[in-house]
Amino acid sequence: MAISGNATATQTDRPVLALAMGDPAGISPELTARILSLPELRSCAHFIVIGDRRILYEGAAIANVELDLVYGSANDLSTNLAERPFFVDLGHLDPADVTRGEATLAGGTFASENFRFALRLAHEGRVHGVCFTPFNKKAMRYAYPGYDDEIRFVSDVLSFQGKMREFNVLERVWNARVTSHIPLSAVSAHISIEAILAEVELTAACLRLAGIDNPKIAVAGLNPHAGDGGSFGMEEIEVIEPAVIEAKAAGYAVDGPFPADTVFLRALKEGFHAVLTMYHDQGQIAMKMMGFDKGVTMMGGLPFPLCTPAHGTAYDIAGRGIADVGASREAVLLAAKMAKRQAAPRKTEHSTF
Amino acid sequence: MAISGNATATQTDRPVLALAMGDPAGISPELTARILSLPELRSCAHFIVIGDRRILYEGAAIANVELDLVYGSANDLSTNLAERPFFVDLGHLDPADVTRGEATLAGGTFASENFRFALRLAHEGRVHGVCFTPFNKKAMRYAYPGYDDEIRFVSDVLSFQGKMREFNVLERVWNARVTSHIPLSAVSAHISIEAILAEVELTAACLRLAGIDNPKIAVAGLNPHAGDGGSFGMEEIEVIEPAVIEAKAAGYAVDGPFPADTVFLRALKEGFHAVLTMYHDQGQIAMKMMGFDKGVTMMGGLPFPLCTPAHGTAYDIAGRGIADVGASREAVLLAAKMAKRQAAPRKTEHSTF
Repeated sequence: MAISGNATATQTDRPVLALAMGDPAGISPELTARILSLPELRSCAHFIVIGDRRILYEGAAIANVELDLVYGSANDLSTNLAERPFFVDLGHLDPADVTRGEATLAGGTFASENFRFALRLAHEGRVHGVCFTPFNKKAMRYAYPGYDDEIRFVSDVLSFQGKMREFNVLERVWNARVTSHIPLSAVSAHISIEAILAEVELTAACLRLAGIDNPKIAVAGLNPHAGDGGSFGMEEIEVIEPAVIEAKAAGYAVDGPFPADTVFLRALKEGFHAVLTMYHDQGQIAMKMMGFDKGVTMMGGLPFPLCTPAHGTAYDIAGRGIADVGASREAVLLAAKMAKRQAAPRKTEHSTF
Repeated sequence: MAISGNATATQTDRPVLALAMGDPAGISPELTARILSLPELRSCAHFIVIGDRRILYEGAAIANVELDLVYGSANDLSTNLAERPFFVDLGHLDPADVTRGEATLAGGTFASENFRFALRLAHEGRVHGVCFTPFNKKAMRYAYPGYDDEIRFVSDVLSFQGKMREFNVLERVWNARVTSHIPLSAVSAHISIEAILAEVELTAACLRLAGIDNPKIAVAGLNPHAGDGGSFGMEEIEVIEPAVIEAKAAGYAVDGPFPADTVFLRALKEGFHAVLTMYHDQGQIAMKMMGFDKGVTMMGGLPFPLCTPAHGTAYDIAGRGIADVGASREAVLLAAKMAKRQAAPRKTEHSTF
């Protein structure tokens, strides 16, 4: 595998991952430091870390880990990658300006600039994938008033017009969804055969990138008891079942619609790799009951993997050195795995950052 | 406590429970036999069991338990209750007519007649509460084409006009819901301040009957992230929050609206006794992840408790003697507990069965 462009060429088979530091008032600094201290992660990818060196140092002190990085500016990225992670010090946030446990404009600006930088590295083909430690939505909105979620932000930054979707990843099962951040009352109108087929296709593609060669997908119904034969809603009969039939005909290992209240239990029992849910909470309720705060959020549909731990900034435990790096570790491992399969020589596009 | 009427007066403080045998093709016969063999249950209530003696014997043989009952007809109920459970032998189903693992008209007729008999005993004040072993919905519909669910059936049989609701009961938390068996697209239109307040009132009343003197209730939002401040739907701001405020003002220990994907985790952590969800799967997904097949379904709002194990007829394991009586045991214990508090001398109404 080779990275295109002249910036970060590497002769190893390890992918290059950009790691953007998240909200500085929460556990992101200590998580970033912990990620960079884990030999397992350092051996699975080359890292380009984006943030402020002073904030990272604080995180390392909290996490009580030694850092062994190469520090430089954005311009220094034109050198070859060394074994050690390369830290791009944007020098844009003084720790004195951080109030731990508080969402601020300064914190949101820091996180959004790091993220923007990482996205552009990926967009230009200079890294194979992107990870970030948790953001605070309120802080992100201070810095970027149009911030709805990562999908919206990424689309804006990259002027990305394609289909991009959030996947929730637990070791045992993934969750994809046809609709997400819309009112519950609007869900039915957004469920169509085309939308379901597109999700099946993207989900299968992402699962394959993650190393599952023959992905099996369970599709949830929309209504109680999956409509109970049309007694409580017709979407299963008119939309979801026809979509499942069409997907099967196209060669996908997909089944359903299954009643939403047992579809995840069924998936675990019957070996489905993912559950495609019709709306946000249909999947999130189950995933969070299964410990999704230890899971990974992956944005699928981009030309590169984009992963983050599923939990939040954990303002309540920030600075105490007790943050669990487990979900961050999974996020990096997934991004590295997907990047190795997804990466192919791409034409470098030029941007102006 | 005393039971009104002349039929089943008892001098003990144990409530009288009617126990209706459910679908004969599944595990109901063996569960009924097991319930009647447990000393713990026999000491917490007097039982009037309704079914066919031959079906019960088969269940006892499968469960490998000895039965010690008094057998009689409906007319014999005019005698005083003995220590031993009284079995009302309706003599209406020959075991030869049961095909194990199959939903049939004969099975549905058996279960619905037993249930109807039990309900009328309660309606007449001759028992303090009703339990039943699982029904098969398809079989019930063969026997009673208008059968949607237990609520509809009970309302029809008793001509009950009041508010009756299904509660899902786990030891750690209850689930009540504002809407149930309606299409998801219709949920928003059925959410109102009045509907939420009525549910809070009924939930608190049922929890008190179950022995929780100061019930705490968590109220779920409707939309993703409980609407995220109005970004994804206005029901939280316009309906649910005002209802919570009004309920608090009326003295209820209620809080919310909380995002649906973490409301059950929050309830467990913060000691809420029940979660009031806005729609069926919002609660069912979480409850089933928490092992609700080991829980109890309780119909609240009637003048007597009505409880059944939450699991189904388990056609796949029927007749093998491995059915777990745990949920049935919980159903009986809950009915007995509620019956002791709910029972008060009531005027006996006359019915014609």
